[in-house]
Amino acid sequence: MANDGINREIRLASRPNGFPQDSDFELAETAILEPGEGEVLVRNVYMSVDPYMRSRMSAAKSYAANFDVGEAMTGGAVGQVVKSRSDVLAEGDWVNSMLGWREYYAADGGSLMKIDPELAPVSKALGVLGLTGWTAYVGLLDLGQPKEGETVFVSAASGAVGSIVGQLAKLKGCRVVGSAGSPEKVARALEVGYDDAFDYKQETFADALDRLCPDGIDVYFENVGGDHLDAALPRMRVFGRIVVCGLISQYNDTELRRGPSLTPLLVNRVTIRGFIVSDHFDRLPDFLRDMSQWYREGKITDEETVVEGIENAPAAFMGLLRGENRGKMLVKIGPDTPLPA
Amino acid sequence: MANDGINREIRLASRPNGFPQDSDFELAETAILEPGEGEVLVRNVYMSVDPYMRSRMSAAKSYAANFDVGEAMTGGAVGQVVKSRSDVLAEGDWVNSMLGWREYYAADGGSLMKIDPELAPVSKALGVLGLTGWTAYVGLLDLGQPKEGETVFVSAASGAVGSIVGQLAKLKGCRVVGSAGSPEKVARALEVGYDDAFDYKQETFADALDRLCPDGIDVYFENVGGDHLDAALPRMRVFGRIVVCGLISQYNDTELRRGPSLTPLLVNRVTIRGFIVSDHFDRLPDFLRDMSQWYREGKITDEETVVEGIENAPAAFMGLLRGENRGKMLVKIGPDTPLPA
Repeated sequence: MANDGINREIRLASRPNGFPQDSDFELAETAILEPGEGEVLVRNVYMSVDPYMRSRMSAAKSYAANFDVGEAMTGGAVGQVVKSRSDVLAEGDWVNSMLGWREYYAADGGSLMKIDPELAPVSKALGVLGLTGWTAYVGLLDLGQPKEGETVFVSAASGAVGSIVGQLAKLKGCRVVGSAGSPEKVARALEVGYDDAFDYKQETFADALDRLCPDGIDVYFENVGGDHLDAALPRMRVFGRIVVCGLISQYNDTELRRGPSLTPLLVNRVTIRGFIVSDHFDRLPDFLRDMSQWYREGKITDEETVVEGIENAPAAFMGLLRGENRGKMLVKIGPDTPLPA
Repeated sequence: MANDGINREIRLASRPNGFPQDSDFELAETAILEPGEGEVLVRNVYMSVDPYMRSRMSAAKSYAANFDVGEAMTGGAVGQVVKSRSDVLAEGDWVNSMLGWREYYAADGGSLMKIDPELAPVSKALGVLGLTGWTAYVGLLDLGQPKEGETVFVSAASGAVGSIVGQLAKLKGCRVVGSAGSPEKVARALEVGYDDAFDYKQETFADALDRLCPDGIDVYFENVGGDHLDAALPRMRVFGRIVVCGLISQYNDTELRRGPSLTPLLVNRVTIRGFIVSDHFDRLPDFLRDMSQWYREGKITDEETVVEGIENAPAAFMGLLRGENRGKMLVKIGPDTPLPA
């Protein structure tokens, strides 16, 4: 095994107060564990950084368990089995796990999801064919219920989830409008198929939505919160649906930010629903079947922003919170070819 | 015909700015119309005043068409046919219409809903067996989806809708907690079957909900808005449902009041849904069947606050907005026995 038997991992050094800082994270070294009976040793190659992780760094209750200070964090990661004492996984197999933020781990072979490297590049299992794509699929299709000819508005349109939501909405015959935080991101949203997109740093939401959704919004897929939601709710059409996937603009707030008036919700019989994809495991097989097919057929494309080196994972995460990614933000932890034995 | 051929009606004299005033209403006299071919002449006996009428007095878009200044207002009313040129209604028949705020009207016989005075006192067709009961039924049962053992919280628990919602929730095996604005209303809520109720003028919502719903709220049936909603949303349980039936505390606001932070909605995967019962006509037959049966069996009881005289209808409406009613607020326009010919 390479790497001198040393595993490097990122631990939560302290709970961020507001926007996270370098000092909230710590790079630590441990010995690489030997797999026990039934276990495999996995070398991570890609890990995902996601906005929801910010909540897990806080002490406040959230939908996922909080990270413990002083412990390695967790999150989606794709890696390769380098040693197996399991009947279900062999050396060289690729697996998806929630054991990111570390180079190596040992785990029960049955607890890992094997992925097929022939289907798509393995990193896609963290993006369009993984949690990100599944989130877009369940959130838009099941909860947003878009109908042909409807207007769908998506915040963070060029983000990992947003860029897939926009493409799914187009597949369903909707008109899709997105917001993004730079001219380059607007261009990217248009590239993946958005009918229109605007740069919210150049134009108020109110002006942009009045211009691009003059007849209102049927489905709002919300990734951002804050000013976005304030502007969108009063512009929802009758029976409109707001699917709250994320509120990234609010994650670093040190006090709760008030929401929009709910009077328009009553007047227009709007539904606002918060969701977490892990409540919808029943739809995982459908998602994998549909999205794999759409991906193979080129109907859904994706983009990755890849940062190299586990030591740069905190910077990648903070960059994500600042919107420095286009599409899926990944950290490449090690080479994606097998290491020499 | 009695009354010297004169119809009295209440017109909207001006659009209220904030809380309505006497001068926003005008009592006017017109000739009683002769029914045309196919029409009936109806003498109203009871009319309903409802919070939603406040929105119709404004110029702002709402879910129901706005009243026109200088015209008689409309709303639920029960009356008796005094002259018929219709094949479907005979003199003496009782009918439910949306032509309240006036003593007499002529209308096509086919446009009116005949009611059976043997089933229940005719005024019930405006309350428990009418729009009010239908609102409670659809809002709680269809949209709130209460399950046995869940905790249901209802604002304005002793109001027309709230008192029925509480009883329906008990029928479904839920624990039901209500808020009300006086010790008498709290007592009334407990009388109809609420497990607990609190006087929000004596205790903060936060304290009361922490005390009475220590494990959180599964279904919140919202009639009031404002501070109620601010306190309830962060106390919703995972997968909680907030059904927004009314926001009476906000109807007289001259600017939109911000809502609660939606961060807890995401964390706990809460759904907030605004609704108007008239979108749910498909459920009217089920409602009439079920509620008539529950009413006859004494499983659902109701209470009425009756103000006498059409000239007092504006005062009744303003009293409703101030919470002076217990149960259904009605105006008795004329005697409920046939007038001498």
